[in-house]
Amino acid sequence: MKKLLVIGVGAGNPDYITMQAVKALNCVDVFFLMDKGQSKDKLIDLRRELCERYITDHDYRFVEAHSPERERGDVDYKASVEDLNRAKQQTFERLINEEMTDDQCGGFLVWGDPALYDSTIRILQAILASGRCVFEFEVIPGITSVQALAAQHKVPLNRIGRSIEITTGRRLAAGQVSDADSLVVMLDAQDAYHHVADQETEIYWGAYLGTPDEILINGKLKDVADEIERVRKAARLEHGWIMDTYLLRKS
Amino acid sequence: MKKLLVIGVGAGNPDYITMQAVKALNCVDVFFLMDKGQSKDKLIDLRRELCERYITDHDYRFVEAHSPERERGDVDYKASVEDLNRAKQQTFERLINEEMTDDQCGGFLVWGDPALYDSTIRILQAILASGRCVFEFEVIPGITSVQALAAQHKVPLNRIGRSIEITTGRRLAAGQVSDADSLVVMLDAQDAYHHVADQETEIYWGAYLGTPDEILINGKLKDVADEIERVRKAARLEHGWIMDTYLLRKS
Ligand SMILES: C[S@@+](CC[C@H](N)C(=O)[O-])C[C@H]1O[C@@H](n2cnc3c(N)ncnc32)[C@H](O)[C@@H]1O
Ligand SMILES: C[S@@+](CC[C@H](N)C(=O)[O-])C[C@H]1O[C@@H](n2cnc3c(N)ncnc32)[C@H](O)[C@@H]1O
Repeated sequence: MKKLLVIGVGAGNPDYITMQAVKALNCVDVFFLMDKGQSKDKLIDLRRELCERYITDHDYRFVEAHSPERERGDVDYKASVEDLNRAKQQTFERLINEEMTDDQCGGFLVWGDPALYDSTIRILQAILASGRCVFEFEVIPGITSVQALAAQHKVPLNRIGRSIEITTGRRLAAGQVSDADSLVVMLDAQDAYHHVADQETEIYWGAYLGTPDEILINGKLKDVADEIERVRKAARLEHGWIMDTYLLRKS
Repeated sequence: MKKLLVIGVGAGNPDYITMQAVKALNCVDVFFLMDKGQSKDKLIDLRRELCERYITDHDYRFVEAHSPERERGDVDYKASVEDLNRAKQQTFERLINEEMTDDQCGGFLVWGDPALYDSTIRILQAILASGRCVFEFEVIPGITSVQALAAQHKVPLNRIGRSIEITTGRRLAAGQVSDADSLVVMLDAQDAYHHVADQETEIYWGAYLGTPDEILINGKLKDVADEIERVRKAARLEHGWIMDTYLLRKS
């Protein structure tokens, strides 16, 4: 039977890769690279680098698939992601059907952990459910940007015995968050931290975490929110793209 | 200056260890082992094993410190953890002062990720703030039990664009959780999933994740809650201890 490995490679530092991921890399015959957008080249480079560094003696090849883009602007977010995932699903089905033989192993290299704001697992489950391809698959966890953030700031994610909420910039901006005293925000395209009322809230912000371009800023919102906005804008201009995450801790 | 490394070793599978952690292990002169309780021997064994397997040519030794126990029973949870952390802090200060010289590197091997329901970072920050020891420290992230759970069940932690709440069994049982549609529960000593009203909720439950003893159960609460309670009790009896985590996903 065809086998697929969904391999989390960590979010940033190439050394975030696990031994389990290294072993998995060494089983893969064909890697499917699906990145899109501005950050494309850097991220694809990193994946090729990981393969070169860690695959010791196994032949492998890359198939770069044109990855559809999500419709942006004034559209329903969930619907646009679902549309995107349907398009991706067709691409995946084609790759699995055309690019691997029955005894081969295909690999998806996923940024960070495949279980966190990534659609690869969801799409593979949908394909299996549709019955249109037959394969088995495994998921290999990877260090998330959330963990990179906490490690680099040397801060626990939770208060003692309390909850952590992980959410998106979109939800924070729309007020769709709970009153958890530790809130981790990802996928923020709109400086949503400006929507937090309590200016005594502590923010631990990090961009390009684990990479040589890493930037860390920490302080109370009233003291650093404007600085973060400035630094963020400048960094995005300089690099052409930005990946940032932050922890908000209530005072 | 003395240097301390807080090294996340992953939660279960020895292959969860990252390259960054392996490099860190190879810098450590003295490892402080602090486990307590019934799971003690197994967990300490795993740490010694990781050192044996991955430390290639660096001399190191272990110092096993008697780790104080948290007061159980009818006490305030947060206060009892704080008491425990104060006692641990004294132990840490003694270890740092007495067991390493100024040019040495000390290591704490933390189960899973040091940022998730673990007190090592908090205690080191408290010691630094007190001014009673001088050192620098670094945090190395590790694969958490939450990621192991998602990977083994092959399930995303979040619904598209939605939040995830990570919380404790104690909070779930007390009704102190938000209405996030993805709820991850850790540190559950009381089968708190029985407190979830909506019996259509899907549960992804895992015990001893990533180890040879791993158990996975998945289904709607109405179908599997009793089975989980039974299996959990039997496993705890058999092993003398249990580590389990679960994801609750609203229908
Ligand atoms: C589509 S999600 C993927 C998350 C990924 N699966 C993980 O485990 O971190 C992309 C978001 O992750 C965050 N992110 C990923 N890598 C990052 C990094 N190196 N530094 C800061 N944020 C990062 C950003 O919030 C970004 O918008
Ligand atoms: C004190 S917390 C430490 C969490 C750890 N730092 C991590 O990153 O997973 C202990 C809790 O983690 C969960 N846990 C840790 N290892 C586990 C495993 N291998 N399988 C299932 N649950 C685990 C259980 O909920 C347990 O009560």
